[in-house]
Amino acid sequence: MSKDEVILLDFWVSPFALRAKIALAEKGVEFEARQEDLLGEKSELLLKSNPIYKKVPVLVHNGKAVNESTIIVSYIEDTWPTPSLLPPCAYGRATARFWADYVDKKLFDGGSKIWRSKGEEVEVAKKEFIEILKVLEGALGEKEYFGGDSFGFVDILAIPITAWFYAYEQYGNFKVEDECPKISAWIKKCLERESVASGYPEPTKVYEFVGLLRKMLGLE
Amino acid sequence: MSKDEVILLDFWVSPFALRAKIALAEKGVEFEARQEDLLGEKSELLLKSNPIYKKVPVLVHNGKAVNESTIIVSYIEDTWPTPSLLPPCAYGRATARFWADYVDKKLFDGGSKIWRSKGEEVEVAKKEFIEILKVLEGALGEKEYFGGDSFGFVDILAIPITAWFYAYEQYGNFKVEDECPKISAWIKKCLERESVASGYPEPTKVYEFVGLLRKMLGLE
Repeated sequence: MSKDEVILLDFWVSPFALRAKIALAEKGVEFEARQEDLLGEKSELLLKSNPIYKKVPVLVHNGKAVNESTIIVSYIEDTWPTPSLLPPCAYGRATARFWADYVDKKLFDGGSKIWRSKGEEVEVAKKEFIEILKVLEGALGEKEYFGGDSFGFVDILAIPITAWFYAYEQYGNFKVEDECPKISAWIKKCLERESVASGYPEPTKVYEFVGLLRKMLGLE
Repeated sequence: MSKDEVILLDFWVSPFALRAKIALAEKGVEFEARQEDLLGEKSELLLKSNPIYKKVPVLVHNGKAVNESTIIVSYIEDTWPTPSLLPPCAYGRATARFWADYVDKKLFDGGSKIWRSKGEEVEVAKKEFIEILKVLEGALGEKEYFGGDSFGFVDILAIPITAWFYAYEQYGNFKVEDECPKISAWIKKCLERESVASGYPEPTKVYEFVGLLRKMLGLE
């Protein structure tokens, strides 16, 4: 659809890079995903494009770099407006940004606390994570997607993190489906979309990757 | 300028509430600031309007509540577009959002670490804070404001936190002016604006307030 040069500095298991991939796919923008070796040496393009954080994802659009996944998704929305990911009215946009921000502040870090913990801390982390999920389930309510009938901004930011839920369940000994059936149904619904399914990593592979991280952190 | 009902749930020393006040003033929007007693009992309107965080600021516009200061400033920009706080091009907007996010993640928490620390930790916190400031000084460069020639989004998010710098200097035993002269000049420039100066708390009063917080936290 686009003749622009669009490069995404990517890492297969990164939920943050997946946000950018889903947003680009929803907009029908062709792009080249370049895998970074985050456990090895970072590419020169990554270090040059993201000197502050030196992290994926980075979107390089016609030579200009955009960093931080939520900002990348906003940039994609501003650059390729159709189909829109945010509602047209200011209040709807503010509501979407509020839940996007809640997801950014809580969901990944909350889940990571489960597998980064040991002993009794695991139970505390699990309870906190389920609380976070229940707040999100309340925001979803009876709607199909966070914004209503159409897949949008909050869904794009949240759905990639759900690929890590299987790992959280294994280390926390619980089932998201039992705790939050609406979130569970929303995940299944989102996974029917090609934009989501095509880059969504196999949850068992994410679990293996988490096992590797735990070894590196001396937790196993 | 506006016949809308605009209420801001405010707290005099909150840099986050000041962001909303500056943005509204820049847009020429009349509003009623209602002081919350954050050390006492929170108002019913606050608890109802911000059930997730129960914090100021909350912007209540014609009965609809918007939470989280950066989202409030975005909402103000979307609702009252003139004069614009964000540049028109997608890349300029992404750059502004990147630095806004950097300020949100680093500046207030980095400064708070100085007065929340004891003994040798103070020196570590001070060094980290100066590093953060130097990164911002690099982003500012030779420009008058973060976005260039006109006062905008990043300035509005960052300038309120500078009212706390005097307290950071007192507890950290350093001078921002010595470390980051460009940031210091930018603060002076911003304070010439009525929108900033009118709600900017007296830095010595902020210092007294921090002293109170330190007592409450058992640090003095």
